[in-house]
Amino acid sequence: MENRIRVAVDAMGGDYAPTEAVKGAVAAVLERENVDVLLVGKQEILEKELEACTYPKERIRIVPASEVIETGEPPVAAIRGKKDSSIVVGMKLVRKDEADAFVSAGSSGAILVGGTTIVGRIKGVERAPLAPLIPTRDGVSLLIDCGANVDARASHLVQFARMGSIYMEHVVGVKNPRVGIVNIGVEEEKGNALVKETYPLLKECKDINFIGSIEAREIPAGAADVIVTEAFVGNVVLKLYEGLGSTLISKIKGSMMSTLRSKIGALLVKPALKKTLKTFDASQYGGAPLLGLKGLVVKCHGNSKETEFKNSIIQCISFKEQNISERIRENLTVVQEKKEEV
Amino acid sequence: MENRIRVAVDAMGGDYAPTEAVKGAVAAVLERENVDVLLVGKQEILEKELEACTYPKERIRIVPASEVIETGEPPVAAIRGKKDSSIVVGMKLVRKDEADAFVSAGSSGAILVGGTTIVGRIKGVERAPLAPLIPTRDGVSLLIDCGANVDARASHLVQFARMGSIYMEHVVGVKNPRVGIVNIGVEEEKGNALVKETYPLLKECKDINFIGSIEAREIPAGAADVIVTEAFVGNVVLKLYEGLGSTLISKIKGSMMSTLRSKIGALLVKPALKKTLKTFDASQYGGAPLLGLKGLVVKCHGNSKETEFKNSIIQCISFKEQNISERIRENLTVVQEKKEEV
Repeated sequence: MENRIRVAVDAMGGDYAPTEAVKGAVAAVLERENVDVLLVGKQEILEKELEACTYPKERIRIVPASEVIETGEPPVAAIRGKKDSSIVVGMKLVRKDEADAFVSAGSSGAILVGGTTIVGRIKGVERAPLAPLIPTRDGVSLLIDCGANVDARASHLVQFARMGSIYMEHVVGVKNPRVGIVNIGVEEEKGNALVKETYPLLKECKDINFIGSIEAREIPAGAADVIVTEAFVGNVVLKLYEGLGSTLISKIKGSMMSTLRSKIGALLVKPALKKTLKTFDASQYGGAPLLGLKGLVVKCHGNSKETEFKNSIIQCISFKEQNISERIRENLTVVQEKKEEV
Repeated sequence: MENRIRVAVDAMGGDYAPTEAVKGAVAAVLERENVDVLLVGKQEILEKELEACTYPKERIRIVPASEVIETGEPPVAAIRGKKDSSIVVGMKLVRKDEADAFVSAGSSGAILVGGTTIVGRIKGVERAPLAPLIPTRDGVSLLIDCGANVDARASHLVQFARMGSIYMEHVVGVKNPRVGIVNIGVEEEKGNALVKETYPLLKECKDINFIGSIEAREIPAGAADVIVTEAFVGNVVLKLYEGLGSTLISKIKGSMMSTLRSKIGALLVKPALKKTLKTFDASQYGGAPLLGLKGLVVKCHGNSKETEFKNSIIQCISFKEQNISERIRENLTVVQEKKEEV
């Protein structure tokens, strides 16, 4: 069992639970040799789902959890009240080191609260940011923070920049990732109070490659590898990305069906177009890690299907192999010690 | 000269000044009978530009201004220091009631500062928001505020909602426009401190059609007619709209040119596609009004060409004919009086 990665998967979370979560788990163990899955959820239901699948039996195990936290429930009360929910049970597996990571497409709020209260933050981490990869013209960028901590402080954003850099460098494989802060202009004196306070602190960070402010216009062009912002703005960026992408694509499809001439053209461009649009489909990149915790927690989209579950599980392998949590711990400790020396 | 609208146009502002500003002015007077243009800028240059154009001479007049405020200049210093700049001279025409409106593609910062300090706010207006129309699936929405006032307070956002409603109803012609506040979830308890404070105040407003929170994902689908947000987030929304739109379109174009088959298809879909993409082109909707001032100030994109200048000038006609400034004054006065009664 050496070097094996154990991923707990919330089989009850998301719009297509449990079927798509189970399919994703099966696909992941078939694709990668060194990952085992702990499927967390209602035992009978999961047994039935698994019966339909072909996979190496010893690599997927059911961990029973009788309750489900619904999306609308107030997160704190849900985490406290539903001790036998798939989210609480799954996160406890990580805390007790019975799993290396937890993947869920369930309630964002409950995952964020549970991540901090059950899995727990690495010592020195002030806030745990949610950091999805977003598609850009020629690749991906990490958007950090994206919904976990509204009304953040400058010191939080500085930690987000550090953690994001470590993730991009070691999980995504971008050497010396460019870190930019979202702003309403590129000049140093521009911005709201939070950005003005954060900017000089980022400039002082010797351990990141800070390139300054970036305007939202430049995000899709890939102007920075790590896009630092507080959660409210990050959430707006992420959701507008999804909404504008799907509106534009549906308008384009509609226009192609508008005349006979364009319908014929549509048939011819379809294969090439499909390939391009796929690179702009968020589900290709797996879920969003909640960084700075003692174990890995990955939040998938609520509408995740097999592919996103599978990619999210596979993502946990690099995270663990690259010792991201340890790297974050070391990085923040070094910074902390330097501060104390001064 | 009854019912004629006089629009001052900054002929020196924008990437394509003065040529495109002059062309836009000419196109506007040719298209609409009741508008006259005051072209503000360097006399000799403008005379030469106008020589090349055919138009009714009495309807375009040059107002000399020897200086130009550059985009990079600190706005307050520029407005104070360059008294003979096209922006200062043009705004003074509005203040002295020698023009009904001022249109400029020049420095945003200078236009915002000049709008407040030279044209002046309507009594009772706390902040003057910049409010562009953005394209949605089936029409347009007003995004307010979009860059004028960072770190706004809840009372400002309430006034933005009121002014935006008046504009959408009377200039754009949307009956009882739906007002939404940008948030990171639709539940009332969601949001950052500013949104949580503003939400109940908007709910109390009897004179607007408040529909609650909207997530950024729903903006492109046209979930609200008036999208209220503070300037930093508004600016991010506007610029991401532009950036993501152009990145997606260039990727789609690229994919259509990738194979022989798709190239042939591209020729066939092109006319239909072009028409669709045009509806998502911001320049079709003219510039963004700075609302709440004693006269109208319209900020065009820095890269505006003839069409955007023309549409921005024409936009001033409805604004004046519909007495928007007076409506705002009355609306805010009534609210103010009601408050005093309490």
